[in-house]
Amino acid sequence: MTDKKLITPRKLQGFWELMPNDEKLFESMLDNFKRVFENNCFLPLDTPVAEYSDILLAKSGGDLDKEIYRFTKGSNDICLRYDLTVPLARFVAMNANVLEFPFKRFQIGKVYRGERPQKGRFREFYQCDADVIGLENLPISYDAECISLYAPCFKSIGLDTTIEISNRKILAGFFESLNSTNLTDLMIIVDKVDKLPKEEINAMFKEKGLNDKDIENTFKIITTKGNIEEIKKEISLISQNQTFLEGIKELTELNTYLKAMNVEDYIFNLSIVRGHNYYTGTVFEAFIKNKRSLGAIGGGGRYDNLCGNFIDKNMQGVGMSIGITRLFDIMQTENMFENNKNLSTKIGIITFDETNLDGIKLMTKLRNDGVLADRVGEGKSFKSKMKESNRRNIPFVVILGEDEVKNGMYTLKIMETSEQKTLTYDELLNEIK
Amino acid sequence: MTDKKLITPRKLQGFWELMPNDEKLFESMLDNFKRVFENNCFLPLDTPVAEYSDILLAKSGGDLDKEIYRFTKGSNDICLRYDLTVPLARFVAMNANVLEFPFKRFQIGKVYRGERPQKGRFREFYQCDADVIGLENLPISYDAECISLYAPCFKSIGLDTTIEISNRKILAGFFESLNSTNLTDLMIIVDKVDKLPKEEINAMFKEKGLNDKDIENTFKIITTKGNIEEIKKEISLISQNQTFLEGIKELTELNTYLKAMNVEDYIFNLSIVRGHNYYTGTVFEAFIKNKRSLGAIGGGGRYDNLCGNFIDKNMQGVGMSIGITRLFDIMQTENMFENNKNLSTKIGIITFDETNLDGIKLMTKLRNDGVLADRVGEGKSFKSKMKESNRRNIPFVVILGEDEVKNGMYTLKIMETSEQKTLTYDELLNEIK
Repeated sequence: MTDKKLITPRKLQGFWELMPNDEKLFESMLDNFKRVFENNCFLPLDTPVAEYSDILLAKSGGDLDKEIYRFTKGSNDICLRYDLTVPLARFVAMNANVLEFPFKRFQIGKVYRGERPQKGRFREFYQCDADVIGLENLPISYDAECISLYAPCFKSIGLDTTIEISNRKILAGFFESLNSTNLTDLMIIVDKVDKLPKEEINAMFKEKGLNDKDIENTFKIITTKGNIEEIKKEISLISQNQTFLEGIKELTELNTYLKAMNVEDYIFNLSIVRGHNYYTGTVFEAFIKNKRSLGAIGGGGRYDNLCGNFIDKNMQGVGMSIGITRLFDIMQTENMFENNKNLSTKIGIITFDETNLDGIKLMTKLRNDGVLADRVGEGKSFKSKMKESNRRNIPFVVILGEDEVKNGMYTLKIMETSEQKTLTYDELLNEIK
Repeated sequence: MTDKKLITPRKLQGFWELMPNDEKLFESMLDNFKRVFENNCFLPLDTPVAEYSDILLAKSGGDLDKEIYRFTKGSNDICLRYDLTVPLARFVAMNANVLEFPFKRFQIGKVYRGERPQKGRFREFYQCDADVIGLENLPISYDAECISLYAPCFKSIGLDTTIEISNRKILAGFFESLNSTNLTDLMIIVDKVDKLPKEEINAMFKEKGLNDKDIENTFKIITTKGNIEEIKKEISLISQNQTFLEGIKELTELNTYLKAMNVEDYIFNLSIVRGHNYYTGTVFEAFIKNKRSLGAIGGGGRYDNLCGNFIDKNMQGVGMSIGITRLFDIMQTENMFENNKNLSTKIGIITFDETNLDGIKLMTKLRNDGVLADRVGEGKSFKSKMKESNRRNIPFVVILGEDEVKNGMYTLKIMETSEQKTLTYDELLNEIK
């Protein structure tokens, strides 16, 4: 065996892989989110990790190429998916005749981007999306429903949320009224407002042809935050543009639905635009309450024409997403997980050679009673077994000697306090539950 | 929009994708299995879908190439994983110094094989594995633990199991005693015993140099089925070969542990070899009880030297797997899922324009009380809403008119019987729970 040439075991750089105890925390987070989506009548979807390249690149016309894992197999030109939205569009377009609309789906899955890996950026990572797709027309109440998912998701992992909401039509309408032909460019500038000094933003607007009055009004809009009445009071008089007014109307309607759904902890913030041109109406971002500096943990909004590259039907949609790999990273860095106890084993069973089989019987019995019981260090010395229980952070240990077996009693050791008790089986169950 | 060139939406052939209602059934099956693994103190693992090619192909020396999705990205030579075992070996080898052994992990994940797709064969499909890896030495009790996972997994989806168990050392030892140099070839013949007529098998053995007496004894071994006493009685005298006797000893020991773990519904069947050379001791296959003709739904066994290509440590392991895509396929084909009711929506809420907001409030309240409530056909006619509820198999519908809102009463329609009741909110909750 030692003569053989060994291959150094290594993982592709930037590909997501957690150690098992962390994976357990991560999966329990995902399970919690899944429960929330399901409780809100969203259906699960699980599309392939790979798609035909022409499908995945339809939207971009090819300029995503650099970031994409693309290859051929036989006569197939294949890409690994870089998000879950294009696969959703492909799925909805393929099955438009059999799906019920509005189609509410969630998907938690891995996506692939060949970027240079760095802290918090992965080449393989998870996305977590919930979307509602409407055939032709989708009521604004579904925008509220997507927003309403954040609080219970975050709450399920012990966090409070703040949602910041806007409607792109407000800014788009205002810019339209300036006869600006540079809507995309102007939105990109707005998206940078949080990151750059005001003078720089000013200069950028000027360069795009906005005069001082326009810039003043733009700033008036994008610095407006508050509840719906405050928003209306601040900006209503700025423009009479049709789209602008529609934006305010939709925001008002959304507010009504959010109230009906008991959504709390949201604020309107008209500087939210969510980068992409992609969004056409409602846009929102989710933050951990009182931790805005950590950045948005999720976001989403309303989009038109999801399936436009595939079928000749106008599908409107609204979606929310949670940046789960980033969220998990933050929670670990900020020590937000509650304890470091062993989550897979609650009680370790320590036996001696002659009680080995009794240990297995006890383990089986405990598991049947719903207790995470496992043997520790079979075949090793008693000292090693105790050491191992400690190292693995197992909270309780049962020591099972011949006498204990004979008397039907169990010696329980509480590892944190080193306290030791001799108990019947029922007392043991009570003690550790 | 109609001028635009559309791309026909299509999915890669043979890649796994279920419609949302089926996906819900599939995921609930996976969730059930996960709970079983967790209850038995197995830890989750989630390795990347892609690995360095030299790592994935280390075992095969390259002859798997045809089946493999392989490509380059930058300077990286990459393969999509074709099973979960090689990634496990890579993971354990990389982390051997920090993992606790025996290391008990489960993984449910997609794997990729570029085979020609056909009924029941996929290019992207799920594997579901649970393994225990030991450093140097792993007690036989862990073989029993892996086997013990089948019954609760199958039971969680309403199925009974039978496990058929053997130990490859019995046959290997016997063939060794014949001084046969063709152990692999002989095992491959044994693996075909169920599929080919006896004369053909006979001829194949003869070709490999076995005489009539040897063949008779081989058949005696591989047709032996029963409990441990029956096995011993039938074959003990056939050989005195060391490995052969060790096989019987291990089987006996395994039997003791299975009893201690309350495993029922297993039988020893010495014709089980599990194809691959890979396995070195215990081998087993799992069947749906009384449905052996559907074939094995899972299997596994004991193997040596898991990480031999990567590190100079002898890691022994034992693992079980469940063929979950095949199992799901069988359950659907054989109509084993219990009902065709809508699993994502239990109660549909039908409103009129003037009660739309009240409908949203009721939906929110019901969801908070743990009821899967959703609005149906917002903006459509009453008739369309009722039709849609029917089509979607929603079991209950609440019809919410202005009078109902005024009186705080709810009209509940039980769709199966068309029965209609007027109820308070609490009565409504009681009725549908």
